[in-house]
This record gives sequence, C-alpha cells and structure tokens, in this order.
Amino acid sequence: MTRSLSIIPIGGLPEIRPGDDLAQMIIDACQADPAGLQADDVLVVSQKVVSKAENRLVKVDPDDPLAHKPLVIEESARVLRRRGDLIISETHHGFVCANAGIDRSNVAPDIAALLPEDSDRSARRLRDAITGRLGIRVAIIVADTFGRPWRRGLTDVAIGSAGIMPILDLRGTNDAVGRELHVTEVCLVDELAGAAELVRGKATGIAVAVIRGVDPAWFAEGSVVGEVVRHPSEDLFR
Amino acid sequence: MTRSLSIIPIGGLPEIRPGDDLAQMIIDACQADPAGLQADDVLVVSQKVVSKAENRLVKVDPDDPLAHKPLVIEESARVLRRRGDLIISETHHGFVCANAGIDRSNVAPDIAALLPEDSDRSARRLRDAITGRLGIRVAIIVADTFGRPWRRGLTDVAIGSAGIMPILDLRGTNDAVGRELHVTEVCLVDELAGAAELVRGKATGIAVAVIRGVDPAWFAEGSVVGEVVRHPSEDLFR
Repeated sequence: MTRSLSIIPIGGLPEIRPGDDLAQMIIDACQADPAGLQADDVLVVSQKVVSKAENRLVKVDPDDPLAHKPLVIEESARVLRRRGDLIISETHHGFVCANAGIDRSNVAPDIAALLPEDSDRSARRLRDAITGRLGIRVAIIVADTFGRPWRRGLTDVAIGSAGIMPILDLRGTNDAVGRELHVTEVCLVDELAGAAELVRGKATGIAVAVIRGVDPAWFAEGSVVGEVVRHPSEDLFR
Repeated sequence: MTRSLSIIPIGGLPEIRPGDDLAQMIIDACQADPAGLQADDVLVVSQKVVSKAENRLVKVDPDDPLAHKPLVIEESARVLRRRGDLIISETHHGFVCANAGIDRSNVAPDIAALLPEDSDRSARRLRDAITGRLGIRVAIIVADTFGRPWRRGLTDVAIGSAGIMPILDLRGTNDAVGRELHVTEVCLVDELAGAAELVRGKATGIAVAVIRGVDPAWFAEGSVVGEVVRHPSEDLFR
C-alpha cells in the first residue's frame, strides 16, 4: 500500500434535530463541498449528530452540572471506577469510557446526549441510505471521544461502523524482511476515527470528515461491537 | 480549523544500520518523493528505524521465539500483568505496553529491537537535524504499535515527539453552541501517529509518513513522556 490519504472536513451541516434525515443532510453537505463525495470514501460522523438525529436526548436541569449522573448509571452495564464526579463504566454496548459516553457539549444547556442505542446499526443505516441514494460504495464510522488508561489526553475512537473492516488481521503475513508477523491486528476504525478528529476539532461544529484514498481491500462488512469491543474475560485490566 | 490533511507514505528509505545518519536518510527519501518536504510538515517515523539507527539492537537466539523475554524484564520498571507468554509492563519511560516494546519483526532473526532509550530525545535530534539542514520548521513523532485495554486490535501511538504540542488543551474554550468545553484535552500526537500508520502499513517496510496541513498553531515544544504518559498515581487502572 503506497497511496496517500486525504482527510477532508465537511462543514455546512445544519443543526440536527430528532427525526432528521441525517444521511441526506450529510450527502447535501458533502455535495456542497468542493471535495464532493466519491466511491470508496470513508465518512467519519460524530456521535453527537447521530444521537441528535436518533433522539437520544434527555432533559436535565440546566443549572445542575451533575444532573446527568443518574443517566450514567442507567446507561452502564457496570461501573468500573469512580473518582470524585468521574465514573468509568462499561456501557450496554461494551464500551469502557467516562460517564457512559453521556455528555452535554454541543447541545442545549437542558439536554444530555446519550450514545446511540446500537451504534453499528446507526452506521449501517447511514451507509445503506447514502449508498442507496448515490449508488456508490462508502463506509461509515461513528466516532466518539474517549479517554484511556496509561496515557493522558483523549482520542476519537469508533463506536460504530459499516462497510469497512474494523480490524485488519495481518497474522500470517510477512514483514519486510520475510519474517511472519505474529500478533498484528490493526484497529483501522480507531485510527480512522482519530485521523478524522484532527480536522473536525471540538469547537468548530464540524461533525463529518471524509477520508479519501483508503485501501479498497478494507471495504468489507464488520461491526465495532462485534470485533473491537474486547470481552471482559479476555481483558487483563478489568 | 477547516483545512484538509494529507497523509503521505514515504518509500525508499534504505535498510537502517546502527550509526546511520537517519535524519539525512529521511531528508533524501522525502526529497526523492514527488511530495517533497515542506515547512510545517509533521514527519511520523517508525520506532523500528530509530532503534536501528541508535543501535538499540540485542543479539538473541534465532531459534528461540522467547529469547527476548529476559530483555523484557530488564527494560521494565514493573510488570503489570502476565498471561502465558504475554507480559504487560511499564517501561522505564513510563509506557504501558506488551513486552516492554521489544519486538523481532522487521529485524534479522537473531536480533531483538529495544525501544529508544529516550524517545523524545530521538525525536528532538531528528527535528533539529532536519530543521537545521533544510531551514524549515518540521515536527517529528516517533511512533510504535501498542495494544490497549477494553478494545481489540493495535493502534500506533507516539512514544516521542518534538516540535508539536502532544496534547491540545481545549479547556476553557467554547463549543459550537457557546458552552464551555470542560475536560477536552486531545492527544494530537497519538491521533497523528495512528493516522500515519494507515499509510505505512506493517508489511511494506515504509517507515516514514508525512502529514501535511496540520494547524500551524500546533507547532510548539513538548514531550510525550512529559505530557502524555500518565503518572501511575493518576491512573485508575494500575
């Protein structure tokens, strides 16, 4: 693989409301951009706009910065750690993250946004609608910003995907000196989500990025919850 | 920020040997590529070529797949978990990873490659040499492939950097609806390292990628060990 990738921020998406046809709004925003939308583009879409379109919004007391905490418990399968107001839990999807992925940025002050109920399904619906309407193969990644142990700072990771293999399995292939690569399974969707974050930013309201130039061999079915989420029994740190 | 990023794989780097002038070899490889090397490019360089140039290579029995395990203990400040042959430890730098970052891919069968002794210093030296010789501002990230808890698959992360802020601190800035962003510190260097991995691949021998289009405001001093490595006392999972 020696192709370059382009990571293109797509502006112009209007404020998303529950029930909106997000797929069409993404198509319109892409088509209004000089970059357009092409076959084999990967579209990385922020969790927040997906949650808004799917009405995963809950009213909370705008004056209470901790008003969403009871929701965190409801949205968690189990709490792993607490420190002060911070709750690290495992969500019903299996994601381990702060506050069950619930947050109050880029929404009205009296709203908390929950993660999509089934974020792989959200990605599949967007992919099916965009591919169906435009007749081109695209992949979708729904991305959210998570912390992680050991390392400071947050990165964007995939919480849902459609049309792209979440993990590229290189086991059994050879390295550049002909030695077999043993334990190399690369999490493509997380690297793509993080790459998209670099152009989306947090304060810009840019909810969509197009990644162009991805290896066509990576377009295949697969799901984040099925392939990226590690079962607790395989995890050395739970 | 509404600029696009380009992620450009740089081929043509020769096999690196201890003592090689890696900075010059990277310059030559970049200048032989149509993309060239420009001011404000971020160069992501694989740990393996840095370790080779710095002679962080140890002879091991080529017939024993576990011959590097004693080195893992030597290179670790403490072992966190063991399962079968797998050792997850904290290195002397503070990185938490498998086998103290030691691996045997893309080296001769009788060689194990250790991490650079001071990977931020490695990055600074490359940056100083390239900037000094070409008279342009560039940033360097030294990247390696690490696993992580909770999620399957590996991603590339930064183990050293120079000339770029490792973490972008957005605390105190406002989101797109004017609400203050509270806990948003984005680990730029890890997202950049992961993005570069998407074009470098594992089996291609492409050890360098250029990332072009990065926000000029991100060019600043900082180090991975100083800013990204989380102190064990702050870590909820150690």
